[in-house]
Amino acid sequence: MVMVDQAKPVMRSYLAATPDFASGKATPRQFLDRSLELLDEWEPRIGAFVCTSLPAARAAADRSAERWRAGKPLSPIDGMPIGIKDIIETVDMPTEMGSPLFAGWRSEKDAASVRALRDAGCVIVGKTVTTEFAAFHPRGTRNPWNTAHTPGGSSSGSAAAVGAGVLSAALGTQVIGSTIRPASFCGAFGFKPSVNGLNREGSHDYQSQSCTGVLAASLEDAWQVAYEIVARVGGDAGTPGLQGPDKMPPAAKPRRLAVLETAGWDAAPVGAKQQLNECVGRLNWAGIEIRTRQNDDTVAALESELLNAAELSHRCNGWETRWFFRSMRERDADKLSPAIRERSQKYENLTLAEHRADLKERDRVRAVHAALAATCDACITLSALGGAPAGLTATGNPEFAVPASLLGVPALSLPLFEVDAMPLGLQVIGFRDRDADAFAAAAWLVSQLK
Amino acid sequence: MVMVDQAKPVMRSYLAATPDFASGKATPRQFLDRSLELLDEWEPRIGAFVCTSLPAARAAADRSAERWRAGKPLSPIDGMPIGIKDIIETVDMPTEMGSPLFAGWRSEKDAASVRALRDAGCVIVGKTVTTEFAAFHPRGTRNPWNTAHTPGGSSSGSAAAVGAGVLSAALGTQVIGSTIRPASFCGAFGFKPSVNGLNREGSHDYQSQSCTGVLAASLEDAWQVAYEIVARVGGDAGTPGLQGPDKMPPAAKPRRLAVLETAGWDAAPVGAKQQLNECVGRLNWAGIEIRTRQNDDTVAALESELLNAAELSHRCNGWETRWFFRSMRERDADKLSPAIRERSQKYENLTLAEHRADLKERDRVRAVHAALAATCDACITLSALGGAPAGLTATGNPEFAVPASLLGVPALSLPLFEVDAMPLGLQVIGFRDRDADAFAAAAWLVSQLK
Repeated sequence: MVMVDQAKPVMRSYLAATPDFASGKATPRQFLDRSLELLDEWEPRIGAFVCTSLPAARAAADRSAERWRAGKPLSPIDGMPIGIKDIIETVDMPTEMGSPLFAGWRSEKDAASVRALRDAGCVIVGKTVTTEFAAFHPRGTRNPWNTAHTPGGSSSGSAAAVGAGVLSAALGTQVIGSTIRPASFCGAFGFKPSVNGLNREGSHDYQSQSCTGVLAASLEDAWQVAYEIVARVGGDAGTPGLQGPDKMPPAAKPRRLAVLETAGWDAAPVGAKQQLNECVGRLNWAGIEIRTRQNDDTVAALESELLNAAELSHRCNGWETRWFFRSMRERDADKLSPAIRERSQKYENLTLAEHRADLKERDRVRAVHAALAATCDACITLSALGGAPAGLTATGNPEFAVPASLLGVPALSLPLFEVDAMPLGLQVIGFRDRDADAFAAAAWLVSQLK
Repeated sequence: MVMVDQAKPVMRSYLAATPDFASGKATPRQFLDRSLELLDEWEPRIGAFVCTSLPAARAAADRSAERWRAGKPLSPIDGMPIGIKDIIETVDMPTEMGSPLFAGWRSEKDAASVRALRDAGCVIVGKTVTTEFAAFHPRGTRNPWNTAHTPGGSSSGSAAAVGAGVLSAALGTQVIGSTIRPASFCGAFGFKPSVNGLNREGSHDYQSQSCTGVLAASLEDAWQVAYEIVARVGGDAGTPGLQGPDKMPPAAKPRRLAVLETAGWDAAPVGAKQQLNECVGRLNWAGIEIRTRQNDDTVAALESELLNAAELSHRCNGWETRWFFRSMRERDADKLSPAIRERSQKYENLTLAEHRADLKERDRVRAVHAALAATCDACITLSALGGAPAGLTATGNPEFAVPASLLGVPALSLPLFEVDAMPLGLQVIGFRDRDADAFAAAAWLVSQLK
């Protein structure tokens, strides 16, 4: 039986609540208790969690409350209830990767990002559902806006739990569309950083264009989670990591924005395009110069380079993961979904030389995009083709999220649109290692368009 | 009771044996059986293995024999008995990382490098001893040249097993001196590739200057193992990986070599310096131009930049691992060695800004070294201060291996010297991503100096 929820879900920003913790009017434990009420209410309907660790979470929230009381929180998000995508290791819970092959498997350690969040005082509520190995095969999570619809993937549980207001933030990952798409579908804010921006050690989404990202109830919550990670464990080893201030940069009005109509654009429903067009009209009216392929050759060049983005991304990922899936097929092919069994064999014949050529080609496309920084502050487009489609057997089209993944640049999904009573995100695509600028532009867009 | 072995250990190249497999005169199974005889003979004395997988190894060798018989080996090293440093994951054996905290722990998957070796037909004999978390604390392995002496570390078991002739090759890793030093101490060939050269996914030696490397019975064996890995799983995701031909490049006489006297040089025993000096004299006599700080300003500049190499390396590693060791201390500090408990706290107060400055400083030193490529074909120096010191409580001074680690460049240890009846390596240090050139020069040096 499928039920359509009556009231729209309401997200719960943690940063918005913390002034009351500082003043003593409320406590992180109370915030968590409300999360757990919402968990009881929502979880049977949306199935966002693989497992939870509630006694430990309550104890952590109590410790956080003491720190706030003493005026010594470990970070601005000390006490934040947070979820960890089940592709990322946790010392106190299994990491099952959405696969029966890893049922009950324990890493016996925290991933770098998880350890950082603990050290920032965050309250780890549980592991959120990922599709099988953070790829396509869904594992039953439902969309809080309409439980007959997919939440998107692969960060399905993170997006559903944040969208439902159960969690203020959750870690996700993205190599194709796994953070931006579910954020869009569940009405959450989504942030995929520049590649290497957040330390991925202990995450099993580890292809060359994979990123650990954040699903959150507000832009501020998303930035703070990312910042507290990078401040403690940096980006991927040997890289400078996410750059930016210790609080979200203030809103900054962009001067010029490029509107991207990338592969799949023609298939987007009229209602979705209309919303973007209206939004672009308002931005233009507000004095922002709008660049498109009609009036900007660089935009046109970038769009045509990106036509092949999905295939190139899949080939890169395919090379990088085929040895792993070969092992998994040998271990027990019956425990793999037919889809992954088939698709993981697609790139078996790629040679090292071909893979190297793909990496070079990706660098070339990245350079085409980087040139756009001379004339634009950011690109905008839809986060997904439209609202979350009905059905739970697939996670929806990721095509609009692919360009930022291929380019290795920051992307944000802002829950500003609605199509057929389902949320849809405005996607802001920034420039490599200028994540803070993307947030500043996004903050301005939210303030104007909300 | 300490026993001094009478006969010098003899290494066993696999590639040298394969012509007999092709002709049908011998089989990989016979080669393995000899390995297992030597294992029985040596293992009680040297303790190179954490665990073995002998029935599977015999079965794999039998399958390899069938392929050779059919004229269809999977690679030139199909059937090679190989060991895997126990910091690298294996699906069929635990990965204990030299720590009681991971006693019996199973990754339930192969590391990329291990999977590649299996696909190349290699016979995985067992997991070789690593120091605690591939750092300093030794785990009891002894040197096959004199069991009262350390084999070096952290790739202790890999070096000892190859040095003793039990294995033709074994995987090691290096972030400071963990491949070059034990290779030198055990009289094996050691190869630390350019950084990112061999895919490290599933290796828990994962700092930014860590490399998966090879200990081997010959240069040819070392190259082939590395090549078969990169051909199948590439370098670290998103990098081109080790570059070079599918067989070891032919020996090439260098025109100019720089002799490096880096930090610690003054402490090297006279006998060790004498051997290097004699070797340099022979090379000069053979017509190779020798550059030193006395006659080359770039060499002098590089040497002074490298005076700080150990401290800078330790600071980079310290930032990159502190979150992990913090977790391990919390899990059970009593299961950590006192040394690692103490040293892992040394860099707790480093800030992200300081770490970023360290990474920039490392890049600056790397550029100074890269400039040397204009005038030199490679650098040479000792692989270690001297022969393996007596005692098993420490793994010896790694200082001479640090420069190549910091620089992220290929390094080879060639077992050409002996000091006080213990082996000592000539170290060849190449240029970044020109690993094949380093092998060509090393092959020439071996042919001339052996």
